Amino acid sequence: MSETGLPTARTRVVREPDRAVYDRETVYRILDEGFLCHVGFTVDGQPFVIPTSYGRKEANLYIHGSAASRMLRQMKEGVPVCITVTLLDGLVLARSVFNHSMNYRSVIVLGKATLVDDPEEKLVALRVLSEHILRGRWDDSRQPNERELKATSVLRVPIEEYSAKVRSGPPIDDAEDYSFPTWAGVIPLEIKAGSPINDPQLDPNRSVPGYARNYNRRS
Amino acid sequence: MSETGLPTARTRVVREPDRAVYDRETVYRILDEGFLCHVGFTVDGQPFVIPTSYGRKEANLYIHGSAASRMLRQMKEGVPVCITVTLLDGLVLARSVFNHSMNYRSVIVLGKATLVDDPEEKLVALRVLSEHILRGRWDDSRQPNERELKATSVLRVPIEEYSAKVRSGPPIDDAEDYSFPTWAGVIPLEIKAGSPINDPQLDPNRSVPGYARNYNRRS
Repeated sequence: MSETGLPTARTRVVREPDRAVYDRETVYRILDEGFLCHVGFTVDGQPFVIPTSYGRKEANLYIHGSAASRMLRQMKEGVPVCITVTLLDGLVLARSVFNHSMNYRSVIVLGKATLVDDPEEKLVALRVLSEHILRGRWDDSRQPNERELKATSVLRVPIEEYSAKVRSGPPIDDAEDYSFPTWAGVIPLEIKAGSPINDPQLDPNRSVPGYARNYNRRS
Repeated sequence: MSETGLPTARTRVVREPDRAVYDRETVYRILDEGFLCHVGFTVDGQPFVIPTSYGRKEANLYIHGSAASRMLRQMKEGVPVCITVTLLDGLVLARSVFNHSMNYRSVIVLGKATLVDDPEEKLVALRVLSEHILRGRWDDSRQPNERELKATSVLRVPIEEYSAKVRSGPPIDDAEDYSFPTWAGVIPLEIKAGSPINDPQLDPNRSVPGYARNYNRRS
């Protein structure tokens, strides 16, 4: 999707175009449900794909990391990146091997990452990143100090050139396969949070806050 | 990791080197627990990162897709790729914003993808891919025919240059932060399967097979 409302040659979904989604609202919903992205960048012709957390504020994605990391060192030079977010919703078991699939929602954003220099935007972005993963945690933590802010780089990637791909629902088999003698259907998959585990050094009088006890990505 | 048993300049973990893992057994365990990877490749200087399933057989990764897909079209020309697998194990809540982290296990494999031409290896690879995701399903499905095999491309990426990164355990706070008045600990995260959903067109006399009823990635 370009800002003109049409996919570009680079973001147009080639395979299974019926799964393509280009509207910004759907893309934002996917980005807001996930919090782990895979960032692609190229160094000397070799692509690297690194998992990292992200946050979204309006039409920008923010990622962060140590100022010393390979990813951040490379990316602040304004090289092209690809940020991909994938939510896996289930295994789709068709009658034929060939028609097996997965239910998923994924977004790719192509763009250039820019280092956030402005201290105010940097702090806002870090808060967005934190709240994106766990709402309520920022205010309940010791705030970053000058040294920590200096050691952290924040990058902004505008959500301008993007596309999403969504598959949902039951398997689609070839007509002649519906009589094949096997089970067919969907195994739903979901990220589930277990019971919070206290830090061994936690003050034993302190109880688990609500935002950690009832963690759930689904909105 | 290179075949000589040492990380290369490209796979040496730069940040948090204490989290680096270079032994093949650990890498294989991570690869065998996951089944969704993110594949990075570069087209005209622009990196793309695409989610897809994979399988492993000995020291090779296999991915597959439609012969018509952008990813497969690009990759069979022998361009460098990066395959990244990330297993997310939990959110790590430290006292300070700065020391928040995630527990995860991730692997990156750098290499060149080669199109699998040999029909026998292709069929074996497709079976590996299927069994990697859901053991027992292949034999319980209608086998691929000639037309379907032709429409599917399989790529082999040797696991030669790789590294893994693992973080586990409680948060690590700065000494002076342990008295900060907040909860600290880990919220464990896991991919959980829900109850299988019958295909609406399923023969009502057919019951859910064991491999679908008790789906669990953990070994």
